[in-house]
Amino acid sequence: MGSNRFGSLFSITTWGESHGKAIGVVIDGCPAGLTLTEEDINQELSKRRPGQITATSSRKETDECQILSGLFENTTTGAPISIIIPNRDVRSKDYEQVKKVLRPGHANFTYLEKYGIYDYRGGGRASARETACRVAAGAVAKKLLKLYNIEITTYLHSIDQIELPSISLSSAKEQLHHSSIFCPCKETELKMVTKIKSLQEEGDSTGGIISCIIENLPPGLGDPVYEKLEAKLANAMLSIPASKGIEFGKGFESAKMNGSNYNDHFILDKGEVKTKTNNAGGTLGGISTGMPLDLKVAFKPTSSICKQQYSVSIEENRKEVPFAFDSTKRHDPVVAIRAVPVVEAMSALVIADLLLTNKTSKI
Amino acid sequence: MGSNRFGSLFSITTWGESHGKAIGVVIDGCPAGLTLTEEDINQELSKRRPGQITATSSRKETDECQILSGLFENTTTGAPISIIIPNRDVRSKDYEQVKKVLRPGHANFTYLEKYGIYDYRGGGRASARETACRVAAGAVAKKLLKLYNIEITTYLHSIDQIELPSISLSSAKEQLHHSSIFCPCKETELKMVTKIKSLQEEGDSTGGIISCIIENLPPGLGDPVYEKLEAKLANAMLSIPASKGIEFGKGFESAKMNGSNYNDHFILDKGEVKTKTNNAGGTLGGISTGMPLDLKVAFKPTSSICKQQYSVSIEENRKEVPFAFDSTKRHDPVVAIRAVPVVEAMSALVIADLLLTNKTSKI
Amino acid sequence: MGSNRFGSLFSITTWGESHGKAIGVVIDGCPAGLTLTEEDINQELSKRRPGQITATSSRKETDECQILSGLFENTTTGAPISIIIPNRDVRSKDYEQVKKVLRPGHANFTYLEKYGIYDYRGGGRASARETACRVAAGAVAKKLLKLYNIEITTYLHSIDQIELPSISLSSAKEQLHHSSIFCPCKETELKMVTKIKSLQEEGDSTGGIISCIIENLPPGLGDPVYEKLEAKLANAMLSIPASKGIEFGKGFESAKMNGSNYNDHFILDKGEVKTKTNNAGGTLGGISTGMPLDLKVAFKPTSSICKQQYSVSIEENRKEVPFAFDSTKRHDPVVAIRAVPVVEAMSALVIADLLLTNKTSKI
Amino acid sequence: MGSNRFGSLFSITTWGESHGKAIGVVIDGCPAGLTLTEEDINQELSKRRPGQITATSSRKETDECQILSGLFENTTTGAPISIIIPNRDVRSKDYEQVKKVLRPGHANFTYLEKYGIYDYRGGGRASARETACRVAAGAVAKKLLKLYNIEITTYLHSIDQIELPSISLSSAKEQLHHSSIFCPCKETELKMVTKIKSLQEEGDSTGGIISCIIENLPPGLGDPVYEKLEAKLANAMLSIPASKGIEFGKGFESAKMNGSNYNDHFILDKGEVKTKTNNAGGTLGGISTGMPLDLKVAFKPTSSICKQQYSVSIEENRKEVPFAFDSTKRHDPVVAIRAVPVVEAMSALVIADLLLTNKTSKI
Repeated sequence: MGSNRFGSLFSITTWGESHGKAIGVVIDGCPAGLTLTEEDINQELSKRRPGQITATSSRKETDECQILSGLFENTTTGAPISIIIPNRDVRSKDYEQVKKVLRPGHANFTYLEKYGIYDYRGGGRASARETACRVAAGAVAKKLLKLYNIEITTYLHSIDQIELPSISLSSAKEQLHHSSIFCPCKETELKMVTKIKSLQEEGDSTGGIISCIIENLPPGLGDPVYEKLEAKLANAMLSIPASKGIEFGKGFESAKMNGSNYNDHFILDKGEVKTKTNNAGGTLGGISTGMPLDLKVAFKPTSSICKQQYSVSIEENRKEVPFAFDSTKRHDPVVAIRAVPVVEAMSALVIADLLLTNKTSKI
Repeated sequence: MGSNRFGSLFSITTWGESHGKAIGVVIDGCPAGLTLTEEDINQELSKRRPGQITATSSRKETDECQILSGLFENTTTGAPISIIIPNRDVRSKDYEQVKKVLRPGHANFTYLEKYGIYDYRGGGRASARETACRVAAGAVAKKLLKLYNIEITTYLHSIDQIELPSISLSSAKEQLHHSSIFCPCKETELKMVTKIKSLQEEGDSTGGIISCIIENLPPGLGDPVYEKLEAKLANAMLSIPASKGIEFGKGFESAKMNGSNYNDHFILDKGEVKTKTNNAGGTLGGISTGMPLDLKVAFKPTSSICKQQYSVSIEENRKEVPFAFDSTKRHDPVVAIRAVPVVEAMSALVIADLLLTNKTSKI
Repeated sequence: MGSNRFGSLFSITTWGESHGKAIGVVIDGCPAGLTLTEEDINQELSKRRPGQITATSSRKETDECQILSGLFENTTTGAPISIIIPNRDVRSKDYEQVKKVLRPGHANFTYLEKYGIYDYRGGGRASARETACRVAAGAVAKKLLKLYNIEITTYLHSIDQIELPSISLSSAKEQLHHSSIFCPCKETELKMVTKIKSLQEEGDSTGGIISCIIENLPPGLGDPVYEKLEAKLANAMLSIPASKGIEFGKGFESAKMNGSNYNDHFILDKGEVKTKTNNAGGTLGGISTGMPLDLKVAFKPTSSICKQQYSVSIEENRKEVPFAFDSTKRHDPVVAIRAVPVVEAMSALVIADLLLTNKTSKI
Repeated sequence: MGSNRFGSLFSITTWGESHGKAIGVVIDGCPAGLTLTEEDINQELSKRRPGQITATSSRKETDECQILSGLFENTTTGAPISIIIPNRDVRSKDYEQVKKVLRPGHANFTYLEKYGIYDYRGGGRASARETACRVAAGAVAKKLLKLYNIEITTYLHSIDQIELPSISLSSAKEQLHHSSIFCPCKETELKMVTKIKSLQEEGDSTGGIISCIIENLPPGLGDPVYEKLEAKLANAMLSIPASKGIEFGKGFESAKMNGSNYNDHFILDKGEVKTKTNNAGGTLGGISTGMPLDLKVAFKPTSSICKQQYSVSIEENRKEVPFAFDSTKRHDPVVAIRAVPVVEAMSALVIADLLLTNKTSKI
């Protein structure tokens, strides 16, 4: 079944393998009347560019997109928006050596089991390369969110054992611009960068947690029962490669709290209903309260490491074999860093979809 | 937009308010040829019956279902299966007092904002009553899973600060049958029951974490990119009332690990590819590896407590008011307990859907 | 795959066999704020009641529905609306004799091939009984259409060789109320009733064509490419049992016309853009022009006839056998008559869906 | 709402305007293991190339596609297949003159009403140019159909008053290859070509009817109620630009027949159940019987004609104006001719989708 489509009304379909000619996305359902340029998208794409950040992979991807349809005089027309991003710096030969060995932590085994065929070069559809299309589409969704004054702030909450201290959202927003690894605290960033460098030297990797906060959501967004705001966001985030968990508000901690200290009391703030605390993270019954929506996503360590591992060779005679990635190649030691703009894009796509959906809830 | 449907090929549509005449579910897409009786469903429904377990709410729901369509001589025909469950013991008057006050932790505020109208009696669609329909549908899905020998084990991992010690899955499966609160460890169960009783006396509540393990999944289940096994399960679980987080395998802990100790090495086990460890929790690239799928869901504390809280009255002149539920009423102090069969049902529904989907992946 | 759902935003799921306990429909996505009573639905249901019209089948169906969910104080809440219609006057024994013989024109052969199991009593899901649920749901859709002042007029255009003369829409609307067979012309009705009676005596049947005109559609309804207004209506109408064709405006005749006499010229009517003629039947590019939408649906003759036919017995040893329905039973000799309210209901459902959809086309 | 997607399991999303840089299609859900080359697609695309047939439009479109994803060593991998077709010979200036005048029979009025913005150059998404993507996707669907030995034959049944005489399917299949206008009868073709030339001289146009016959469908294809084979095909065909009607088997004629001469009697043919006649056109209860599926689609006359017409100018002051297309431009006088491969492609897409769907109907 097709599994490359996301969203109901504001929907995207992505395509392309990491080592093909190009990757792309078709946005279907974007309302007419939105101003949009290629520059809007390229700006977002540049955030996930690995060459830009010392701490991440050395593959060079300039990632300049082309919008092939859906615009007339820089305005969306209601027609599908086709965005294409050429693949550059593709070195498929690098993968010849691992052609017949299952790579630990990678999807070649499961794809082979599912489809009976697998494009071993660079991960195919399972590659994080695919997420560039999510970021491109997210840039369009953000243009819609802007009309509603909705703002998304996404940052690294932790990598390895290094965790962000408690900081205010306003301070986070300010400091985020100065960080090359989406860490909104100078001191923590330094520790993180040191950790990353040492992991690179060891040929090892680590995981991380991303925080995402959505402000100015109108109350009433999200649909009851199976289309709850959390259900849709959870679906979105767990579709990102390497993600292994999500929580909202106090999340897993809330399982250890009591109703008397967890429940967010309603208050009146200039005549508007707000809650005093925001332990629920901005929703009740799966619908936005108007308080900031607050979620965290956990990412596993990068699977490609240069340390010795064990695996299975799937030549005609299957056998167990030692396995290590070539240490001269550089891989991102922390996949969570590049996932920051992806988490933000997926949030934007979910919210754009729900903004449209919500127009149909009342007569 | 309709938000009461779940699943693509094996799909369900649920309906009914907690204080209406009945609730129900229509299963559309169940393959023909499955043996099914009302008893199959009633047996699953009895697991979430509050009257049965001392530790949970005192509302009496015998919950006997009627199958109104889709069967011929106790066999599914491919036609939609309509299951109806009458509502009994409905005391709507209990809610008259809270008609005009926003209940902390409840959805009346957000429903009102969304729809401009709200059935204040017992939570309407936001009530946990709706989950009976998920359990009924899950019972049908389980009949399909049985043909594939797939087995789901679901239990309480923790409530409040009380956590299950590390136990083997086989021991958990055995002990689970003896527990009235789905706790597969006698000693822990005793601590939990003591905690629950003390919370009931205080009029307070707490949260909990549920563990769910799915064995014998064929490798290759789940679809890449937006229909990943984790993405679909996350969607399913976060649609359950009161759920606030989900994680797979090592989950949030994996964010603190290194690739060298996280990656699951491939091994050969009687000629079959397995992994030595199962930190990923049974998936790679969003597709099942054949190892047990392993997830945890966090639930917030029950919102209805008898302790004094603060809220807002939405009479013509909005004002802040003190608020407490009537202490003579009994509410579940730990909503997570009754959520155990619901988590299991949602797992079954996701897997049933993917088993059908998977038939179409290869020529 | 589930095939019992219709519509995207305003969607219905129907269930139930002709000889089961009940049939029903769940409407998911009906906006909140619509006034609705059981009487609204029963009124529409009475239109397809066979007992009422001398010319149609003698099976007695009082068809009084129950609304089990989705309303609060006679107003829709945004929750799914579950409507149930009990089956009465079910005489399953009548079908014992035809248990093992493929009925010409009926679906038992194809259902058996598809599902390997078939509920032979009265056609199961293939029975026209299922259409009562469409009419019930259509009654709800019509309540939404009324807010937009949209009006649907549906009538018999022809049966057998007897065709309606050219009449004005206003005259049709007036006379329609007086006809028991939905024929808006007294003289033609008399001819039709005579024909029907003679067919009943012969034990034969005939087909018919239904006309449906939708007035006051706002221009801009319907979506380009695959969701064209005609595409959605064609889908809706060809899903009605016994329908074999559909045409819009001049339809099949337009294939014989020239552009110079077919094209509808644009004119200004009190400052509004209209077209001088309406050969296209109210759409351009699959989107409504604001002119009346005009379609016709062709229905085949009723399959159940009492004349001698030939068929195949599917006992263990398949063999060709003569076949005739019991002449003491009465069947509708013209299925098209009872299809009139069904065509109207399906139109209403399509338009309701598109009205919601259309709210999302512009920023 | 997105309206550029077609199909459930084997699904396509098309994009691109007639006067943009390119058009394209993404196929999502094509099973892995299908052999596929660009040549397979180009061969089908060449059938709708206007330059090739004297009788049709003079715009030159070489239409060579590029497959950008979804293949590995010329085999489908289960990943989305992205096909792109560059737009050549685009002369947007031709449309400057008609920028502010509603073109009779065209969609600029309805698009403007719907979206508030319209790409007036060449029809945008409403252009028949979009159908090239359907043909490209249909070529892939046909590769799947070939595995099942399913064969589609599509031809011109009539244009204007000129109708094909009754011919056998085998003769039609043979002669079709020799015709440049998809007319499977030499004599009729000559009359049609004469008619087309005279229409071109007059600057007028005409409509036509297309016949499509699908052989070797396995019995059991198509789903009951809302996903009937006819419902899906009707949806597909009425989404083709300029189509105004569809009928199956005897179609509209069946409305004038009696059950006693319409019903197809079941017979045994080498032990297999067949029907003696095929008035129903290959379905019963919306499911294939195994007899040839037989449908006809009516197309209106080409809207762009050079004769004088009347219309409305939408400059600031709306006014009625005379209107005629520039007679030095050549337009297809019979849009039905180029629609032949499009009807065939849409049939193939529907059947491919149902073949996948059908894998899930039984346990």
